[in-house]
Amino acid sequence: MQQTFSKADIQALSKEYRRNLINSISGFKSLCLVGTVDREGQTNLSLISSIIHVGANPPLMGMLMRPHVVPRHTIENIEATHHFTFNHVREEFFEEAHQTSARYPKEISEFEATGLKEEYSESFPAPYVLESSVKIGLRFVERHFITANATQLIVGEVIELRLPTIGIMSDGFVDLEKLGTITVSGLDSYHTTRSLKRLPYAKAGNQS
Amino acid sequence: MQQTFSKADIQALSKEYRRNLINSISGFKSLCLVGTVDREGQTNLSLISSIIHVGANPPLMGMLMRPHVVPRHTIENIEATHHFTFNHVREEFFEEAHQTSARYPKEISEFEATGLKEEYSESFPAPYVLESSVKIGLRFVERHFITANATQLIVGEVIELRLPTIGIMSDGFVDLEKLGTITVSGLDSYHTTRSLKRLPYAKAGNQS
Repeated sequence: MQQTFSKADIQALSKEYRRNLINSISGFKSLCLVGTVDREGQTNLSLISSIIHVGANPPLMGMLMRPHVVPRHTIENIEATHHFTFNHVREEFFEEAHQTSARYPKEISEFEATGLKEEYSESFPAPYVLESSVKIGLRFVERHFITANATQLIVGEVIELRLPTIGIMSDGFVDLEKLGTITVSGLDSYHTTRSLKRLPYAKAGNQS
Repeated sequence: MQQTFSKADIQALSKEYRRNLINSISGFKSLCLVGTVDREGQTNLSLISSIIHVGANPPLMGMLMRPHVVPRHTIENIEATHHFTFNHVREEFFEEAHQTSARYPKEISEFEATGLKEEYSESFPAPYVLESSVKIGLRFVERHFITANATQLIVGEVIELRLPTIGIMSDGFVDLEKLGTITVSGLDSYHTTRSLKRLPYAKAGNQS
């Protein structure tokens, strides 16, 4: 049986029901811990699922920040120090990753609160997450404010990338499953994956 | 063994290797077929993995369009008719979905080319994909041009939502796994999922 929600139906839902429903329908999402640091060296870690690939050349990624949901420390730190990291979440520490979404005061680092460990590269100012497999260092490039709901899209350029050699295939594809990267649906549902297939480049005339 | 790519290393990669690498590191991604129609009634279907949740109230979703990768017919149709649909991809038709990314001329609908079927609701102008489970009807709200690489973020409001009743939990959460929604990594790697757990709302002090 199929259920249809009209615009009026969606508006009439309770706040919590609507939040769960609408957060679910965007599908399985990228899941990263975002590492930042302020000018005094205080680190911050927050869990984000609104990450998109923006382009490969130059290498750009974006994240949408919802000021009322995500602790604003992440945005403040990016404004202050212009660098941030994306760190893939693995099954081994997804509960600690989830716990970073609690509202800690600024003087408590989520690293300290959850036991996840900071990792630094010589050439990059913001903290990586040691336990993560794929670690991405980004420099702030631009941002766009979404008029409709006062969120903002932050775009960064990938200026450093650290990952296990074993996960990189000969054509540059990264086998995220082998590296243990997990995914999320809705606000709080975590999932591992099972590969179906890589498909060849699609051409008109070649029916799959 | 860990491999580190600096900005210079990434710039020095071959175009194909860099495209695969950078497209992979954004993690597992939402995967939807985007349905549109032009003023003459010619339909179009394209596969998109750059979809983000923008907000729940009002219900907003976004997609990043790369003009040189995605067939431009989708953008042209949205400019002309202001409506589009997101349709989750299931294991049963992921090869047909992939095939829509081939460059068909405008007079050939990807529905016709791949055998996927159009579905219409009485109140919504753009075509849904019959075979899909979660079907989302959106009205164009705003767009933002990313200066760094001439891509654009299209934001739409969810004004209709159709999905099987069996997938909707009592709190509004949608069990996408039960509905067969799949995910993608990189440009061409498709995956099903296996649920780990839903976690309760995180609070400071409650160590997970």
